[in-house]
Amino acid sequence: MAQMVEISDVDDPRVDDFRDLSRADRRPDRPGGRGLVIAEGVVVVERLLASPYPVRALFGVRRRVEDLAEATADLDVPAYVADADVMARVVGFHLNRGVLAVADRAPAVDPAELVARSRRLAVLEGIGDHENLGALFRNAAALGVDGVLLGAGCSDPLYRRSVRVSMGHVLRVPFAHLETWPEDLKLLRDEGFRIAALTPRGDSKALRDAGLDQGRVAVLLGSEGPGLTDEAIEAADVAVRIPMAEGVDSLNVATAGALTFHALSGT
Amino acid sequence: MAQMVEISDVDDPRVDDFRDLSRADRRPDRPGGRGLVIAEGVVVVERLLASPYPVRALFGVRRRVEDLAEATADLDVPAYVADADVMARVVGFHLNRGVLAVADRAPAVDPAELVARSRRLAVLEGIGDHENLGALFRNAAALGVDGVLLGAGCSDPLYRRSVRVSMGHVLRVPFAHLETWPEDLKLLRDEGFRIAALTPRGDSKALRDAGLDQGRVAVLLGSEGPGLTDEAIEAADVAVRIPMAEGVDSLNVATAGALTFHALSGT
Repeated sequence: MAQMVEISDVDDPRVDDFRDLSRADRRPDRPGGRGLVIAEGVVVVERLLASPYPVRALFGVRRRVEDLAEATADLDVPAYVADADVMARVVGFHLNRGVLAVADRAPAVDPAELVARSRRLAVLEGIGDHENLGALFRNAAALGVDGVLLGAGCSDPLYRRSVRVSMGHVLRVPFAHLETWPEDLKLLRDEGFRIAALTPRGDSKALRDAGLDQGRVAVLLGSEGPGLTDEAIEAADVAVRIPMAEGVDSLNVATAGALTFHALSGT
Repeated sequence: MAQMVEISDVDDPRVDDFRDLSRADRRPDRPGGRGLVIAEGVVVVERLLASPYPVRALFGVRRRVEDLAEATADLDVPAYVADADVMARVVGFHLNRGVLAVADRAPAVDPAELVARSRRLAVLEGIGDHENLGALFRNAAALGVDGVLLGAGCSDPLYRRSVRVSMGHVLRVPFAHLETWPEDLKLLRDEGFRIAALTPRGDSKALRDAGLDQGRVAVLLGSEGPGLTDEAIEAADVAVRIPMAEGVDSLNVATAGALTFHALSGT
């Protein structure tokens, strides 16, 4: 298993990857930003270990690191062990979950390659909120979506908070960036995907009546407030809505995503 | 409209209902606890004003209070106005949304009465997390659930955080407490409701195949970790599951609720 290394000095440079994680949240060049991937808690660390992301190190209290003994059996990286107080002072806050792992990013996935091997896809536009993004990945994983395409205005799914809210599923569901938006949606059309835009506008079909469980389908989801841009809606083949009660403006985007993903699955 | 009263002294006792709201979160006898209902932001305050809860006062920055002029046109309560700094010092934190309202609780709803006038109900067991509770009410409102019954182990839906996460819909969707759990589910059976328990256990039917859009149906939802108790599942007429991909343990309970409520609606 990963080799245990005791850390008793808060300033020990060997745990610099884990230092000041909250501050790093605002610094894309630091852990938790665009640089490294941070997983928190036994379950999420296990998902990181099973992912394509190359793990650099673990850091936790002894008991939690030991919980991961089996998952790290074949892993040749250090597992730094500290007491909860030292750990809190390195990380910058008290960590309920007791263990972290850090990994490098994996090479970006080619969107054409992801489209080619998928049957059901989610395509996101303007999802800037990290919690919504994480929740969308969790729902995509649970409800059988094969991958996520990120259009214009989306945040980084590997940000620490997204990883946590996704329960680590952001490490499991493949995603790729569409560079030219919304023109790159043609990648989907070239592969025979039907593109459904989720929007409450008048000429949309009710989710249940849109036949989304047939064939290859990609669902476009926009952010909760403004929704999808007109350009994105126009690039879709069909507009779909979730019928809603009077006096209610919208559902949370991850919830709307879950309803749509379930409709895709046909199960 | 509500009468504007300038507040410049942080210690002014007239805004005591709004004082130290974060601290009050932990004190059931204080605003935001079991005593009073707090609404935050223009939209949620509007829903409070349209609810059965008797509003005592508003408190906000001038611009946000003025946004509510129409909604408070017939209201004979004070609208305390302060600058953002004074307001932050009273409330205990900076309030992005700029306006609050406080109301007394309305008399508890009789569960038998709520059951009698409903066709689709959500019944909750062990939902202790205020955010999940709020999100469940938001989803219930959006997807046409007529009311919520609270079984054993649920938190107070009128807690400040639940009100906020529900976007104020906790003030709009009627709820009632079941005193004897799960025996009081007979109130539902006496009225001809079919009771569906959401649970992943083996003999459950897939959500899509359970015919939940027919007749009067109540859905039992348990908390994310432990799920429903055996007693609750046994008290139900049918066990229903959301088909999930391999390797995914569960959905968030409010998301699972949304999928189920949509299945109830038949639209």
